[in-house]
Amino acid sequence: MSSERGAAILLVCDGLGDRPTVGGKTPLQAADTPNMDAVSEEGINGLMDVISPGIVPGSDTAHLALFGYDPYRYYPGRGVFEALGADMELHQGDIAFRANFATVDDSMRIIDRRAGRRGSKELADALDGLEIEDVRISLRNTTEHRCAVVMRGDNLSRLVSDVDTHVEGGTVGKCRPLKEGEAERKTARIVNEFVRRSYEILNKHPVNEERRQRGELPANILLLRGAGSYKEVPSLHARFGFNAACVAGASLYKGVGKYLGMTLITVEGATGKGDTNLANKAEAALHALKTYQLVFVHVKATDSMGHDGNFQGKKEMVARIDKELVARLKDTDAYIAITADHSTPVSIKRHSGDPVPVVMKGEGVRRDEVKRFDELSAASGGLCRIRGLDLIPILADLMGYYVMYGT
Amino acid sequence: MSSERGAAILLVCDGLGDRPTVGGKTPLQAADTPNMDAVSEEGINGLMDVISPGIVPGSDTAHLALFGYDPYRYYPGRGVFEALGADMELHQGDIAFRANFATVDDSMRIIDRRAGRRGSKELADALDGLEIEDVRISLRNTTEHRCAVVMRGDNLSRLVSDVDTHVEGGTVGKCRPLKEGEAERKTARIVNEFVRRSYEILNKHPVNEERRQRGELPANILLLRGAGSYKEVPSLHARFGFNAACVAGASLYKGVGKYLGMTLITVEGATGKGDTNLANKAEAALHALKTYQLVFVHVKATDSMGHDGNFQGKKEMVARIDKELVARLKDTDAYIAITADHSTPVSIKRHSGDPVPVVMKGEGVRRDEVKRFDELSAASGGLCRIRGLDLIPILADLMGYYVMYGT
Repeated sequence: MSSERGAAILLVCDGLGDRPTVGGKTPLQAADTPNMDAVSEEGINGLMDVISPGIVPGSDTAHLALFGYDPYRYYPGRGVFEALGADMELHQGDIAFRANFATVDDSMRIIDRRAGRRGSKELADALDGLEIEDVRISLRNTTEHRCAVVMRGDNLSRLVSDVDTHVEGGTVGKCRPLKEGEAERKTARIVNEFVRRSYEILNKHPVNEERRQRGELPANILLLRGAGSYKEVPSLHARFGFNAACVAGASLYKGVGKYLGMTLITVEGATGKGDTNLANKAEAALHALKTYQLVFVHVKATDSMGHDGNFQGKKEMVARIDKELVARLKDTDAYIAITADHSTPVSIKRHSGDPVPVVMKGEGVRRDEVKRFDELSAASGGLCRIRGLDLIPILADLMGYYVMYGT
Repeated sequence: MSSERGAAILLVCDGLGDRPTVGGKTPLQAADTPNMDAVSEEGINGLMDVISPGIVPGSDTAHLALFGYDPYRYYPGRGVFEALGADMELHQGDIAFRANFATVDDSMRIIDRRAGRRGSKELADALDGLEIEDVRISLRNTTEHRCAVVMRGDNLSRLVSDVDTHVEGGTVGKCRPLKEGEAERKTARIVNEFVRRSYEILNKHPVNEERRQRGELPANILLLRGAGSYKEVPSLHARFGFNAACVAGASLYKGVGKYLGMTLITVEGATGKGDTNLANKAEAALHALKTYQLVFVHVKATDSMGHDGNFQGKKEMVARIDKELVARLKDTDAYIAITADHSTPVSIKRHSGDPVPVVMKGEGVRRDEVKRFDELSAASGGLCRIRGLDLIPILADLMGYYVMYGT
């Protein structure tokens, strides 16, 4: 590594992009963002289709694309990221799932698919280590009602359906093979048996007896979804030559970081929620810059506000990011790039295919005329309209970790 | 060919793109370019990623892309272009190399990998026609210390490493197979034996004795690199229907032109260097327009100035191109397109992945609001951000040599 090479911070505000809503403005346009605007003014701006125009990215596939990994080639299924983010060990061929503690009645009707948003380490431990046929099942409770599950055994497949149907009032779904095959049939069979056993064990568990006595919903079943199949991929270091660190609160993003070979930085108070400690994240990022060439900083709450349709909340979260995070990060010698993984417009409360604004500032950048960081101003910037897969190659070229083709 | 079809000049200023440097301007922004600006004002402008965003093109792969040939599919290796540019005959399966006359001491330590930048036809002739095993080796001295080498024989491969390690003070490297295979082992063996024989023959050659007596560096070894494997590709005429001519000084670009079926126009004083005769190139291009529908005009020195980190030199070269070339070319009935094969920022003295400006002027072009030809102004032009592979299809469509898909 030559000393001429530079470092970079990549700040991803989840679901930041939006559509004109209150007073014809997006939350980002309406928010007070003097620091982001200063980065825009000193940098080069543009719009970015994280996957491709009009295609709505999931947060998982979006982050693969943002780091230069074509999701159509490298996506292992969501469960893999959840398990890695929960610091579970994965071997080639393991099948991993996201899972929810849920509340069902005795006819398997779903009362609350999140069990009052409360999990329990003790309940998780009661299921951890179960064996069904030759398959050993590991389980960890991550945040609230959420868990990650890993199945290890011969001949398993990720091509099985979700058990969690996302519908309250329905009955617990059956896991089905998504294609004809012995591995798919076996995996579905193991999943269904595991879900059945989870009810058997959890429903009568003392923790749930106590919850019932307090008038709380029991976490009496585990619903699996998002099967993924673990396979090692070339790391960011192997592909681009730099070492990367991940400063994130939510487990999915830690999982993506780990999958791509980043070092996970633990940050006190980084919760992946609206109350997350942004000052601590800023400190952690600046500290990481001493050791790592790329520091990925992720903030989740902008997306959550979008899903909640909360214009005011999203606007205030953006202002907090500006004041507590960007103000601290923007004046290092490192390049800084600010963008989003997708839009989550408050008007539709879901991810959308609208492109996201992107800005890069630092040594040698072709400074354009854009003076505001938002979805509309970005359109006239010097980057024009790029794709998510282009972001890291562009940043790496600026940093001096370039990929040359030809002579 | 219908008489409604038009012709076009494609002017490629090598390595023209740059980053803001002196006074926050790129050399192109700082240069006096009234003629390029007039083309911008009358034309449609944009940015172009010659390969793809952030990917740093070599000059060879870049030119394939600029002519609509995907380099990941059509790139034969640099040596092929050097040999074609040196007007050497190539047959299917021949392996071609770039080579340098170099100076080594008697322990094979490299004193000067360019032998004082001086070659010799007589020394080249002393090696031309050597036979090693069943392989016949041809050699030609092109410019200064540079040569092209062609090996013809059974079962040869381009997958061998460079002998020229680009490092002064080291010893001459060994050519190694880049994959396990009989052809690769054989080719590496032939290359190593040829390099050994080149020293044996050149070191004691009278031309070098004289050089030593004059206190000059002997050109006493030949270092090979950039192996390429010749294979015929469909010509521009076969793909687009027009005849193309190439007006270039440096052999690489002549080689690319020949590879794609262009006619090479010989221009007095076109050297591929800063002293190249641009007026003669302009005359040659205008003359070629009478016979050919696409005239490719290449100027090398902008790239060389970038590699030298010479802001002032690059700026002045741009102004010369404007005054001596563009002023003469811009007012024909033909379309004119001006662009670069890649950026070579003076601040980093290497190729970079920054996109290049591109402008097209002529009948029916959608004239935009851009009034200056430079890397920043182009971003707001009517072409937005295109790729190198798009350039010829867009130009061909304007010219009337379009490719239609569907009915």
